[in-house]
Amino acid sequence: MLKFKVTILGSGSAVPTRDRNPTAQLINLHNTYILADCAEGTQLCLRENSIRLQKVDYILISHLHGDHFYGLPGLISTLHLLGRSKPITIFGPPGLEKAVMGMVEISRSNLRYPLRFVETQTEHKELIIEHSTFEIYSFPLLHKVPTTGFLFEEKPKKRLYRPEIGEDFGIPHYWIDRIKQGQDYIDEEGNRILNRLLTKDPEPPKSYAFCTDTAYYPKIATFIQDVDVIYHEASFLVEDKKRALETRHSTSQDAAQIAMLCNARKLVIGHFSARYNNLQPFLEEAKPFFNNVVLAYDGMVINV
Amino acid sequence: MLKFKVTILGSGSAVPTRDRNPTAQLINLHNTYILADCAEGTQLCLRENSIRLQKVDYILISHLHGDHFYGLPGLISTLHLLGRSKPITIFGPPGLEKAVMGMVEISRSNLRYPLRFVETQTEHKELIIEHSTFEIYSFPLLHKVPTTGFLFEEKPKKRLYRPEIGEDFGIPHYWIDRIKQGQDYIDEEGNRILNRLLTKDPEPPKSYAFCTDTAYYPKIATFIQDVDVIYHEASFLVEDKKRALETRHSTSQDAAQIAMLCNARKLVIGHFSARYNNLQPFLEEAKPFFNNVVLAYDGMVINV
Repeated sequence: MLKFKVTILGSGSAVPTRDRNPTAQLINLHNTYILADCAEGTQLCLRENSIRLQKVDYILISHLHGDHFYGLPGLISTLHLLGRSKPITIFGPPGLEKAVMGMVEISRSNLRYPLRFVETQTEHKELIIEHSTFEIYSFPLLHKVPTTGFLFEEKPKKRLYRPEIGEDFGIPHYWIDRIKQGQDYIDEEGNRILNRLLTKDPEPPKSYAFCTDTAYYPKIATFIQDVDVIYHEASFLVEDKKRALETRHSTSQDAAQIAMLCNARKLVIGHFSARYNNLQPFLEEAKPFFNNVVLAYDGMVINV
Repeated sequence: MLKFKVTILGSGSAVPTRDRNPTAQLINLHNTYILADCAEGTQLCLRENSIRLQKVDYILISHLHGDHFYGLPGLISTLHLLGRSKPITIFGPPGLEKAVMGMVEISRSNLRYPLRFVETQTEHKELIIEHSTFEIYSFPLLHKVPTTGFLFEEKPKKRLYRPEIGEDFGIPHYWIDRIKQGQDYIDEEGNRILNRLLTKDPEPPKSYAFCTDTAYYPKIATFIQDVDVIYHEASFLVEDKKRALETRHSTSQDAAQIAMLCNARKLVIGHFSARYNNLQPFLEEAKPFFNNVVLAYDGMVINV
């Protein structure tokens, strides 16, 4: 079965602590490796999670606050020093390339591999990567600076062919792939055998949404309706709602309401402010709105 | 007694490993805190060594390779988020300010504290910081890009007054400070009592030199003659001398020869290439040239 696995590399907010690195996640989507955000220290977090740096194919940057992209110059340089030749593509807000390459180019390293930047926008949801078996979209979030979330979505899988029934109808081999793609079978005499008789439903396509940083923004639900797993920031508890509003961050209650509106299956919350020692109240405040909620931690693996 | 203490935060070279971070050191010089180099992750290394980030007064950057300065944007931002108001001054090669501030300013944080950059040069040795009890110099090293070392030097200490002898001569109280500064005592009748009778030698001033990255460069000895402790990079073993020459790095034998030429008391070697698992040969190759040599490790504390 194709893998769809998220490894949380950093679940903290801007101020790094001994327990929580700032934001980064690695998504293994059918063996394509996508890094979502890249805070300072991300290259070390990858190592600590025994993930080879060279596996990374794409890097997606949500916004230009330091705790979401300051690890890029170091990662780019290390990939070079380790002899990478495979290209890498980085998606992020306008200005990212200039800031990051200002750091990389002053080190006078001529990169050995092709590095390409693609700008994201915050006007509407947009397809940014399409592979044969999955799609990745950016979509607007609501923060102090232009910020996008990212949606990782499997394409509908092929239908499961039932060979025992196919044999009964004498279906020739060269028809099978068309049937898996959903076509009815029409024999030489023009008789139609409905596809739903010949196939079983495949596993439904899975999806994962990465939503950080953002204020409470119900419009998110229109971009990622029915998502399987949503990672949503929850920087604050309700007692600090004022601070959340000022800084355009969310409470765990906000995150739970978004998960509910999205009709999500599971909610993972993270990006906790360093001011809290005990995170249990984050769950308690979220559960009345959305019960299937867990706290992110560094090294957590989510099988979507 | 005034402290003069060096904490090695990172003793590795460009590619970070699980055991060794890239270059950074914190020097506590009479309770002024100076960070020498600031690789990615330095802010976390400070925490891991239980050093409050806000203690840092000065940051000195040797050169513009990523493994010596990529931690600056993150550290600068975190100091801001933690509410710093005390100024900070960063010394480093031309171009440092533009690259680093390109990262900081795009995050749209208006720093709450004064941040000042001062450019270093590689023409000659230069006094860059002078306090009442110590001085700090930059001096040229020999690397692929403009690089300086830094010399931390206590000023000569006051002479130790011998009150029992002073009493015999009936020396008035207001003379004592002058005598500590080395003056002879002259009484009201014009009789001179030699200072060396009235005082004992103080502890000699101590010094520490930070030399990384550099090829073998004997001229270093003219900049830091008689230094107490020298930290010198030793990226390679003799078997990789060719690679050392190409990349303008040193072998541990080179480092030992420099320590010998400097007439140093102690040599600390670091910046080991990640290719070596066993570092014992670094000591074996150095000792024939300079016996008092130790391997740096992350978290090492050197009392100068």
